[in-house]
Amino acid sequence: MSNKLAQALYDFTAVSGNNELSIQEGETLTVINWNVGGGWVEAQNSKGQTGLVPEDYIQVRKNIVIIHILSKIHINCSIDDDEWDDESDDGRSMGGNSWSQTEEGGGRIQRSAAHHSVKISLNKFPVFSKAPNPEVYLLSKHLPKQTDRLPIYMGEVGPVWLYPQSQLDCVVADPKKGSKMYGLKSYIEYQITPNSTNRPVNHRYKHFDWLYERLTEKFGCALPIPSLPDKQVTGRFEDEFIKMRMERLQAWMSRMCRHPVVSNSDVFQLFLTYKDEKDWKEGKRKAEKDETAGVMIFSYMDPEVPDLEPTEVEQRYETYSRFTRSMDDGVKDLHSVSHLHWKRCTGPLQKEYRHIGKALQNLSSVFNTSGYQGEATLTEALMTTGKIYEEIAEIVAGQPKKDLHYLMETNNEYKGLLGCFPDIIGVQKAAIEKVKDADRLVAMNKIAPQDKHNMAKNLSTMSYAFQAEMNHFHSNRIYDYNRVMQFYLQEQVKFYETIAEKLKQALSQYTNL
Amino acid sequence: MSNKLAQALYDFTAVSGNNELSIQEGETLTVINWNVGGGWVEAQNSKGQTGLVPEDYIQVRKNIVIIHILSKIHINCSIDDDEWDDESDDGRSMGGNSWSQTEEGGGRIQRSAAHHSVKISLNKFPVFSKAPNPEVYLLSKHLPKQTDRLPIYMGEVGPVWLYPQSQLDCVVADPKKGSKMYGLKSYIEYQITPNSTNRPVNHRYKHFDWLYERLTEKFGCALPIPSLPDKQVTGRFEDEFIKMRMERLQAWMSRMCRHPVVSNSDVFQLFLTYKDEKDWKEGKRKAEKDETAGVMIFSYMDPEVPDLEPTEVEQRYETYSRFTRSMDDGVKDLHSVSHLHWKRCTGPLQKEYRHIGKALQNLSSVFNTSGYQGEATLTEALMTTGKIYEEIAEIVAGQPKKDLHYLMETNNEYKGLLGCFPDIIGVQKAAIEKVKDADRLVAMNKIAPQDKHNMAKNLSTMSYAFQAEMNHFHSNRIYDYNRVMQFYLQEQVKFYETIAEKLKQALSQYTNL
Repeated sequence: MSNKLAQALYDFTAVSGNNELSIQEGETLTVINWNVGGGWVEAQNSKGQTGLVPEDYIQVRKNIVIIHILSKIHINCSIDDDEWDDESDDGRSMGGNSWSQTEEGGGRIQRSAAHHSVKISLNKFPVFSKAPNPEVYLLSKHLPKQTDRLPIYMGEVGPVWLYPQSQLDCVVADPKKGSKMYGLKSYIEYQITPNSTNRPVNHRYKHFDWLYERLTEKFGCALPIPSLPDKQVTGRFEDEFIKMRMERLQAWMSRMCRHPVVSNSDVFQLFLTYKDEKDWKEGKRKAEKDETAGVMIFSYMDPEVPDLEPTEVEQRYETYSRFTRSMDDGVKDLHSVSHLHWKRCTGPLQKEYRHIGKALQNLSSVFNTSGYQGEATLTEALMTTGKIYEEIAEIVAGQPKKDLHYLMETNNEYKGLLGCFPDIIGVQKAAIEKVKDADRLVAMNKIAPQDKHNMAKNLSTMSYAFQAEMNHFHSNRIYDYNRVMQFYLQEQVKFYETIAEKLKQALSQYTNL
Repeated sequence: MSNKLAQALYDFTAVSGNNELSIQEGETLTVINWNVGGGWVEAQNSKGQTGLVPEDYIQVRKNIVIIHILSKIHINCSIDDDEWDDESDDGRSMGGNSWSQTEEGGGRIQRSAAHHSVKISLNKFPVFSKAPNPEVYLLSKHLPKQTDRLPIYMGEVGPVWLYPQSQLDCVVADPKKGSKMYGLKSYIEYQITPNSTNRPVNHRYKHFDWLYERLTEKFGCALPIPSLPDKQVTGRFEDEFIKMRMERLQAWMSRMCRHPVVSNSDVFQLFLTYKDEKDWKEGKRKAEKDETAGVMIFSYMDPEVPDLEPTEVEQRYETYSRFTRSMDDGVKDLHSVSHLHWKRCTGPLQKEYRHIGKALQNLSSVFNTSGYQGEATLTEALMTTGKIYEEIAEIVAGQPKKDLHYLMETNNEYKGLLGCFPDIIGVQKAAIEKVKDADRLVAMNKIAPQDKHNMAKNLSTMSYAFQAEMNHFHSNRIYDYNRVMQFYLQEQVKFYETIAEKLKQALSQYTNL
């Protein structure tokens, strides 16, 4: 592994007996194993102590990584680099052909770097984020252009986006290792096939990241754009990691496809359906020049419903704000207990069932030495039982990956989505305050009376957008949790039935009295 | 509770996070809860720290208890005394009638006291026990009297005791609180009904203890007489404790009934079938005068098989010695892992399932506040699932009492039986050494040449007795472990099937997609 250094983002106090490691904010750690599962990694501190820490609590130290990799470039040709040392590298590989590198402007690099320093600490923990100022939009007067307008209708559940007739989806598959710069750099390329064209396109992680940045810039004030699965320095070419990342990119893409506004946007369509290098490059350049960023997205929104009074807006805002906060707590709670349960299953419980298995097998061996006749049935039955308990140990330890994993992944996705809401809510809140302040501004001659009316109208539009988005969120949430809970319970039923079956098998070995 | 003081017999280091308390040998502790189960009690140290300690690691401090109780006698009329302050009290209660007290000779008290100081430290941990000297018996010449002889036959499995046509058993039931000394003293009386007479007799714990002493004195050199369930000072009148003690007295009595030598002895028959007070008293006096103690029991044994050569005796001895030691280790290993598993089920696992249940119910409540239509099915399903996980928590925590308990009780019984073997093996070993030394003793004129022949013959008898006992032990062991494992697995299957059923019930609440 080329590098494993990470920095503790928060204090974490180990629960003793759980193979955990206490860490302090700012402490440098060496990550020994990224693939522990259940949201844990195994790390070593400077004193040489090792143990599990939550992966959310650490951050890979990029500067160290880069220095380390750069120092390697001159001596070694097989380097694990992908996203890390080539932020400005626009070279792409498609169908095995390496494209030529293109140096982009300094602005792009700057923004990208700035974005990164924020991204890790902010997208995951958005508590301290500062919401954009909605004033520019509130005071704007232009009507949506007919082409780019984002209509909002009144549906059965309230305001809703315009949903397409057939829902877009895509399959992320077939991760392939590619290389460029004469084999000096290697990376993983995924094949993405949308159901709209059935024509696969190839993308590296960095292109997903590029897409994420575009979507965040363009829609981030109105729609929750969840973070991509985390970047990772070491172990990027291990099968387990590739599988996991692909699964998460698939989940992310499916969620974006399901969103009527996102999935219909030019940049998202480009990503999924570009025809060739030229098409991609042109589209990319166009997307990067798109000036619709921040609150201005609301200017495209066109609610075909009567305007709301600011007081109504505030009521809705309160409801959603409360809901997303409570759900965030609920999701985190479920997440933490799932974490613990995962660790229990793969740790103490597995050991315990193994130990029970060994103790029974040991007793069987001892009984075998008795020299007493008619012992065979019991010793064989005990041996079988012991072995079955060892099997059960492995079943117990392997189960979380089979079911809890998906519950936790869904939960994690929602943690990510909910993490976007403070920004979205912040914008709504700021807009409400601005409109409340409108009378004073009119009195001070800072805005015209007509502006005040306009602000209220625009606030209504913002609120409808928020409502449409919340309804989208709720409908997806109900679908997702229904599906994942069903899956989880099905697997849990199978799990308990399998163990019961195994034990019945052991039971049948004993003499009926 | 009148008293809870106990002394730590050994060091015990708590595993943190397990709610355990570290204790040091000699430390005084206050026992807070005797009914934790799984071999644990909850105790408090002098610093006020509380936690679980293994009940085997502590000993109730009798002197403190007695002083405490004596000091109470003068001020308080409702005292929990039973076995503790009336070692010499021969008063018995039968059918509610208090018998008059009888002061016995000092010898009895002395022996009894001496016995007690040894009993707690020795019967449970027999490592340092000193085996009786078999010389007296080896040099003896008398043939078994026809009436009291204990024949040993050659059965299919080797030497065996003479088994009765119908096996004796008894039912220990109906524990009743009695009192004497005008209500100053109260005690629990059990009803014991043997299948031979179907006539119930009543006994208090102290009478079981008296029987145990008689059996140990008479047969202890040849047969393992397992200890009675532990004495206990506090909580003796709590239902849970009474139930547990009765269960253990039942197991002890059944084991004694199953033993052809013990069950046929006068003292055991007296205990089970005495007709009235007079009968009991006479029998009791007679039993206490019985001079057959220690190694002299072998003089009643009459193997109807050819004498064994001392070398053959040594071989058998080696086999049994090795077996009982390995089984002791095996049983202790199974016991310790059972302990741990019990504590896991009633501790962290129960908590974890409860927490999962709460997290799901909490999520359901949060979802309920969404204000979104069409939410009801999911929220109800989530609520049901959460409640079912809470039920599962209780099922998991209650399971060890339903199945592991019996496995541990059987295991404990065998731990007790195996604890008797070092004494029995010690006698055998000492006899072998004596016989090896016989030539030297003849040369030194310490014994006659005929004595040497006699010693070898008596050693052969001892060995046959040992073999018969081992065969009895093996046959019981196979029966007991077959039965208890079958029971355990049956209950475990039910346990996993019940959980699977419950989860299916939860699953059925979700919308099929």
